[in-house]
Amino acid sequence: MTATRSVLAAQATDFPRWFQDVISKAELADNGPVRGTMVVRPYGYGIWELLQEAMNRRIKATGAQNAYFPLLIPESYLQREAEHVEGFSPELAVVTHAGGKQLEEPAVIRPTSETVVGEYLAKWIQSYRDLPLLLNQWANVVRWELRPRLFLRTTEFLWQEGHTAHASAEDARAFATKILYDVYRQVMVDVLAIPVVVGRKTRRERFAGAVNTMTLEAMTGDGKALQMGTSHELGQNFARAFDIGYLSSEGRRELAWTTSWGSSTRMVGGLIMVHGDDNGLRVPPAVAPVQVVVLAVKDEAITAAHAIADELTAEGLRVTVDDRADQPFGRRAVNWELKGVPIRIEVGPRDLAANNATVVRRLRDSAKTAVNLTELTAHVVNAIEADQTHLLAEATARQTARITTVSTVDEAVDAAATGWARIPYDAVGEQGEDRLGESGITVRCLQRPDGGLPVEDNEPDLTAYVARSY
Amino acid sequence: MTATRSVLAAQATDFPRWFQDVISKAELADNGPVRGTMVVRPYGYGIWELLQEAMNRRIKATGAQNAYFPLLIPESYLQREAEHVEGFSPELAVVTHAGGKQLEEPAVIRPTSETVVGEYLAKWIQSYRDLPLLLNQWANVVRWELRPRLFLRTTEFLWQEGHTAHASAEDARAFATKILYDVYRQVMVDVLAIPVVVGRKTRRERFAGAVNTMTLEAMTGDGKALQMGTSHELGQNFARAFDIGYLSSEGRRELAWTTSWGSSTRMVGGLIMVHGDDNGLRVPPAVAPVQVVVLAVKDEAITAAHAIADELTAEGLRVTVDDRADQPFGRRAVNWELKGVPIRIEVGPRDLAANNATVVRRLRDSAKTAVNLTELTAHVVNAIEADQTHLLAEATARQTARITTVSTVDEAVDAAATGWARIPYDAVGEQGEDRLGESGITVRCLQRPDGGLPVEDNEPDLTAYVARSY
Repeated sequence: MTATRSVLAAQATDFPRWFQDVISKAELADNGPVRGTMVVRPYGYGIWELLQEAMNRRIKATGAQNAYFPLLIPESYLQREAEHVEGFSPELAVVTHAGGKQLEEPAVIRPTSETVVGEYLAKWIQSYRDLPLLLNQWANVVRWELRPRLFLRTTEFLWQEGHTAHASAEDARAFATKILYDVYRQVMVDVLAIPVVVGRKTRRERFAGAVNTMTLEAMTGDGKALQMGTSHELGQNFARAFDIGYLSSEGRRELAWTTSWGSSTRMVGGLIMVHGDDNGLRVPPAVAPVQVVVLAVKDEAITAAHAIADELTAEGLRVTVDDRADQPFGRRAVNWELKGVPIRIEVGPRDLAANNATVVRRLRDSAKTAVNLTELTAHVVNAIEADQTHLLAEATARQTARITTVSTVDEAVDAAATGWARIPYDAVGEQGEDRLGESGITVRCLQRPDGGLPVEDNEPDLTAYVARSY
Repeated sequence: MTATRSVLAAQATDFPRWFQDVISKAELADNGPVRGTMVVRPYGYGIWELLQEAMNRRIKATGAQNAYFPLLIPESYLQREAEHVEGFSPELAVVTHAGGKQLEEPAVIRPTSETVVGEYLAKWIQSYRDLPLLLNQWANVVRWELRPRLFLRTTEFLWQEGHTAHASAEDARAFATKILYDVYRQVMVDVLAIPVVVGRKTRRERFAGAVNTMTLEAMTGDGKALQMGTSHELGQNFARAFDIGYLSSEGRRELAWTTSWGSSTRMVGGLIMVHGDDNGLRVPPAVAPVQVVVLAVKDEAITAAHAIADELTAEGLRVTVDDRADQPFGRRAVNWELKGVPIRIEVGPRDLAANNATVVRRLRDSAKTAVNLTELTAHVVNAIEADQTHLLAEATARQTARITTVSTVDEAVDAAATGWARIPYDAVGEQGEDRLGESGITVRCLQRPDGGLPVEDNEPDLTAYVARSY
């Protein structure tokens, strides 16, 4: 192991500072010039692209189609849904001037697109034959944040937002739930190697305008919660506000039932906070822009390094050669460690003389093994696969260990100092949420006794997960 | 052929109206609620996604990496490059209020990102080892348009913008030229089946802040010109404004040389205008979201239609089944024709009795052939490939036929009434550009006698292409 502790704050000492340091040193992102905005650098964007691809493929598999709605929304649109405008008004960025003139009606930069999408759903949907209508868009949105933090809460962020319309409440619920489990949870668990607790939000944590918000919560390295994605049943709230109606097969005019669901660049923040360690980032192989770096220790090893890289690339791996043999080896190794590249292959004259290369597995405490060149490709392919699984197992074990089952709010407050608490929701209630709030703790989500999703706010015997959160 | 003329204006009568009609009837896009904005519907977005993928792959092959810069740029950034701010000021959308307060410094929505990228290039580039730095981003931009037109000139549009920094003028020029030929021209010709004339812009048509703008111009169905993409040498203008410097290998501090290059959703407008006919859109197979539609004429043919579709899908084609046998066949056929799906396979009970299907080739005047089911897949695979080539050949032949070689500005004005004129630039000059301008005609680009790119404004014996344009 190489000592990189000097360039990063230690996680145990100052986790938020460590997070900032990693983002900067691993060249993931920079602060933008307008307060709260973010510049995503190529390495960070490379992770986002792979994540986006995995998400997009699964969204399309549900039958949803991509489209694109405008960035600018007339201010009056937001006012049509009372809770929605109340929730988003404080965060809006407003364009008052354009083309050298004051606009007759100010336009807001979308904070989310339910309103503008609603307007077009109303136009496009005529009959029950047009339902369900399943749309998704990849876009940027702007929400003016008081306490911005790179990737987690930026004034502008990138996301996908899905918007669907259905003929019945049941169909809408089934689809919102399908997105939650078959798209979001799959990507988080199988691709990002992040275990998530899936549940229903309490009324106060609900999306502005929704009748039900379902969430996926991850546990960060410091035991807090991070909301990784949400899926909303909007009931007929937006259908009423935008007149999204259809002619039923019986010839009656009915209002549609809509859903919306979103996941964003915040997931990259989750990846950093869940998997990173004191030596830097650790990227799950499935979204690693560089899965393997081949380091030529000295000039004499450059040809061999490229040959190894070619063979691994031919296996479908994403490989980079670091042949800057004129620069100090230690510094280069630390740099790749910081960037969390899963596999580092070090090739030096001594290794080559023994027909070997040294394989360093970042996701296994940087364990080093000398591997014969004839077996190297197979070894690396296996390691990549095993380490993706290992990362999930490690995060799952930590999450399990740091969830404490308690029975009173006071115990929950204690437990939330270092992890999450699981508590009967009957022991919390709306008053309990207030008391938790005083300690900076929120109910992250509610589950049925079997871990399933509640479909009503007031179901008996619900379990609440409570925690501090980012 | 099915008669669809009734739903679209005829191209010969009113080409701009035809263009609007096609966009609406083929469900490509709608006007957005804020003037000049656009809602891209799933079918239009599907074309864009395929185009984007083809472009993105080639951009990455040049070594450029994707990144993401903020939507909002401090107003002061634009003012640092004098020509740039002069060019873009009239088109800016300005955010003056956010989070319920007036901003201390207004932020503009990016009309293009040279300024904000320049600020970060300056930060990231230290030494000659960091050069060239090759970045690209896929993003939305806003330019307040006086005369908006869907896809061609919308207030908000989607595009990619590349930004690179180099150690020498020669290296910058070589890269900007590589993008022009190896990325843009390749995508336009090989993917969109659109022939383009490649040349240098005159000084007055140059990008605000560039020392050289290179362009690719396509000819629309009504003989006008459409700028499909541009690549700019920015000299040291932005390097000076944002202090993008580096330490040379000799240890001297030098200013970098930068480039930028962009292509947008306007290309989808080009596709419509170049390939469409009186029956609607005609989509090149390479970017067709649906390459083949299999139409079940009646209920009895639905099973067979799905079997055919499965076989074609297994060949890697993008296939849809239209099994709405309860709806009129003629209307469905017209709809697919309008949408420009390259191959329509009609399957009815009579066809099946003869072990046949009817193949209708949209890109070959909807020629119909009865094809034996055993040969159907091979037939369609060949047709798809041949029709992509055919479409390019057709567009190339029209372009060639409608370019008139002339020797005076008066002749050029005449020729530009129905097509383009080729004229010695010596016969035009800056005064000639004024005279052309009075007739709504511009110099689209300049070429050397061998068709190559001029590297100076005042080279002798240049040829000018002049035309009306969208």
